[in-house]
Amino acid sequence: MGAERAERILDAAAELIARYGYAKTSVSDVARAAGIAKGAIYREFPSKEAVLEALLDRQTRRLTGAVARAVREDPVGARLSTVYRHALGALAADPLMRALYTADSQVLGDVVRRRGPERYGPRQRLVVEFVSRMQRAGLIRADLAAEAVAHVLGILSVGLVAIESTVGSEAAPPLEETLEALSALLADGFETGPGADSADGRRVFDSFLADLAAAAQPPPDSARRE
Amino acid sequence: MGAERAERILDAAAELIARYGYAKTSVSDVARAAGIAKGAIYREFPSKEAVLEALLDRQTRRLTGAVARAVREDPVGARLSTVYRHALGALAADPLMRALYTADSQVLGDVVRRRGPERYGPRQRLVVEFVSRMQRAGLIRADLAAEAVAHVLGILSVGLVAIESTVGSEAAPPLEETLEALSALLADGFETGPGADSADGRRVFDSFLADLAAAAQPPPDSARRE
Repeated sequence: MGAERAERILDAAAELIARYGYAKTSVSDVARAAGIAKGAIYREFPSKEAVLEALLDRQTRRLTGAVARAVREDPVGARLSTVYRHALGALAADPLMRALYTADSQVLGDVVRRRGPERYGPRQRLVVEFVSRMQRAGLIRADLAAEAVAHVLGILSVGLVAIESTVGSEAAPPLEETLEALSALLADGFETGPGADSADGRRVFDSFLADLAAAAQPPPDSARRE
Repeated sequence: MGAERAERILDAAAELIARYGYAKTSVSDVARAAGIAKGAIYREFPSKEAVLEALLDRQTRRLTGAVARAVREDPVGARLSTVYRHALGALAADPLMRALYTADSQVLGDVVRRRGPERYGPRQRLVVEFVSRMQRAGLIRADLAAEAVAHVLGILSVGLVAIESTVGSEAAPPLEETLEALSALLADGFETGPGADSADGRRVFDSFLADLAAAAQPPPDSARRE
């Protein structure tokens, strides 16, 4: 019961936040849209911020799943440029992430500033490990520190989502062109090794996915149900 | 008189904003720190937001000047990777820009969202022109649209400044390592042509600087004094 209700709450919250922003979405709004009593929300989530946290966790799991599928289906295989092309494309196309980072950056900013380092730190350590393994497999240049390469990848992700609120969307070229340029930049700037697929890359990427899944927050209520 | 007083107001505002943030800095605070009457500020600037705008314009002129000097002194010369290494380094090292984008992003966000596109649009068109000229000179790969390359350069700048508020500064590697990785990425990912200096690159960069200077807001009060 709890898990299904929690999902319904998160669905309603996602739609309201994408449309009106986090600041203008109240717990009462979410309750009404989800068709449940306000008190029932507080049995699942202690606060509105907890709803946002759970939503970000769920969205992160979904994005990771979408990227894993896209990389698996990509004929070029699991290279840094294909992984990040799919990751950045999924991030930029996500209406919730766009809403949170653009119209709503001041509010999300507060939550992210308080919780960002503890949310981001462990995940970023896994990206460093991924880069480091790709370097040992000969698929990423080894003359740069894995931490610096991973940080640059983070800069690209944050920059892609944040630039819209800085410059407006009119000034930007079509997303596909931007993703192509980013992918070409990473392929020629950070990758080494042959242009074709590589079983090593796939193995390293699969370990990365397994690490991410192990580190992720459990889906809502699963802890309580076990 | 006006120009000197305007500079004194901007100096005081820069120091207060860097220390306390834009939101917590009032026009009265600026007047007190500058040692002039509040009414005198309003003779130079119609509002607190106008002070911020003038400050951003001044800082942009100073950053451009610092980058021009650094590129001139760089033995590698005016290549995309050296220009952006110096530009990103100057941006990341600027306490005012860091304060505005990190502690204060919610407030700056409002100003930037309202005025960002009109501030950023003309400047970005000059970056597109710079990339396009570098492509014709054989110094940037020509298989990507100049608009897309310029947008990626914008993503790197915004991402570098914005990532601190997302992830905290503890998780980041030393700035010099990040700049080295960014510079290596641009050199191998976007540049073409020989690794050495190029008179063409310098010529293209000098035109870019001239265009930026022509498009920049005039220094405070200069219009009224002419």
